[in-house]
Amino acid sequence: MPSQNFYLCYMQTVIIGSGNVAHHLAKAFVENNIPLKQIFGRNEAALKAISDDTKIPFSTSKLKEADLYLICVNDQSIKEVSLMIKNPEALVAHTSGSLPKDILKGNYRKASFYPLQTFSKTKNLDYSKIPFFIEAENESDQNILEALARKISANVMASNHEQRKYVHMTAVFACNFVNHLFAKAKEISDSQAIPFDYFLPLIDETVEKIHHIDPKSAQTGPAVRNDSRVLLLHEELLQEEHLKIYRAMNESIKKMYQLT
Amino acid sequence: MPSQNFYLCYMQTVIIGSGNVAHHLAKAFVENNIPLKQIFGRNEAALKAISDDTKIPFSTSKLKEADLYLICVNDQSIKEVSLMIKNPEALVAHTSGSLPKDILKGNYRKASFYPLQTFSKTKNLDYSKIPFFIEAENESDQNILEALARKISANVMASNHEQRKYVHMTAVFACNFVNHLFAKAKEISDSQAIPFDYFLPLIDETVEKIHHIDPKSAQTGPAVRNDSRVLLLHEELLQEEHLKIYRAMNESIKKMYQLT
Repeated sequence: MPSQNFYLCYMQTVIIGSGNVAHHLAKAFVENNIPLKQIFGRNEAALKAISDDTKIPFSTSKLKEADLYLICVNDQSIKEVSLMIKNPEALVAHTSGSLPKDILKGNYRKASFYPLQTFSKTKNLDYSKIPFFIEAENESDQNILEALARKISANVMASNHEQRKYVHMTAVFACNFVNHLFAKAKEISDSQAIPFDYFLPLIDETVEKIHHIDPKSAQTGPAVRNDSRVLLLHEELLQEEHLKIYRAMNESIKKMYQLT
Repeated sequence: MPSQNFYLCYMQTVIIGSGNVAHHLAKAFVENNIPLKQIFGRNEAALKAISDDTKIPFSTSKLKEADLYLICVNDQSIKEVSLMIKNPEALVAHTSGSLPKDILKGNYRKASFYPLQTFSKTKNLDYSKIPFFIEAENESDQNILEALARKISANVMASNHEQRKYVHMTAVFACNFVNHLFAKAKEISDSQAIPFDYFLPLIDETVEKIHHIDPKSAQTGPAVRNDSRVLLLHEELLQEEHLKIYRAMNESIKKMYQLT
């Protein structure tokens, strides 16, 4: 689509926000030679760090005119920030997984530009693999934002608010909850002075497997074996939160394999 | 320890069992040039597959005399199998994470030789990273089994039955439960025709992170942000098992970060 590429080359884009999403999106733009006009936000130190990293100018006081504004602030602040944009010719997109595009309250064209990844400031990421979920008000904006995302990543998908909520929720299960299980597992191994590092090969293999096998088929462990001896033995060792999770997960595993 | 290496070279070892643990241990032995005398079991087809893979002779009828027997059968069968070994000079080790060495019922020296990994038949594994947890009746046997495990892996640790139970339980949290969360996550994404593959980069990153950061510090998501709007929105979309897990995990995350 040459017209979009042409447009993308001349499109003036501003990122609003100074957190992890803003930082990584700015880096992804720079790495893929997509021009960025400004990074705008409140936290001067954080903006300066992004600017040092990307050579994009920043401001805490004067938001520049642009064709596209990407709002990369936390969910609670999107509405307020969206009111700062006064250009009716602009296209404005937020990057939240859980909010509709109508959370944006200004008089302009609205969109959602949702990158699915867990961003932490310190880590380098391969942006080419990050899925982007895009929703705009009209086909032209949809095409432009998809083309922009495709300059960064190979995984770009149109998706409405309803679908995005499920994307976000799937990520909560597959990422946030998984990390919490790692934290609980580490509490158990720490309690016995067993190095948690010993479990990393097992964890790596668990994840490697599901790149090739449906996780439902890859399930192992006492619950799917319906091994009540081990399940009881573990329950005797566990307390409170660990026990609650242990029971909830085992019950769910048994239900999935119709063992109850 | 030259005497142990000397002994290991001449030690005659038999693996009993024909499942995934037997198959992978046999492969680990062969890859590290550790002699194996026989693989013994009931399932002829499975034994033949291991034998084809490793060139170790197998039998379903006649258990050969050996210095060391490694019992790689499921927990329920260990006791019965252990009674087949009649050599009072033998050292016999089981490979279970949840049973004491005294589950072995014959008149011989007893031990536990527990490799911590999730074994599936079809996958090649890097055995050098697999942690082995070793317990024997006396120092000499302990040294021999640790030396044997160190020929396969860099991560070898002495551990008694009590500690092994916690190792196993940690693995259940960090591997079995994590895989179940992947399965539940896939149910959610499947329900919306969102490719589960889109979540693999996120999952990979989640796991990559905890190689460098304590999982407790790496936690992200609505619960640790105490974002009640998103938590409620997700609860409205979820049903039954998904909802139970969603609530149990979020409650546990909030407790870990003292948000309740």
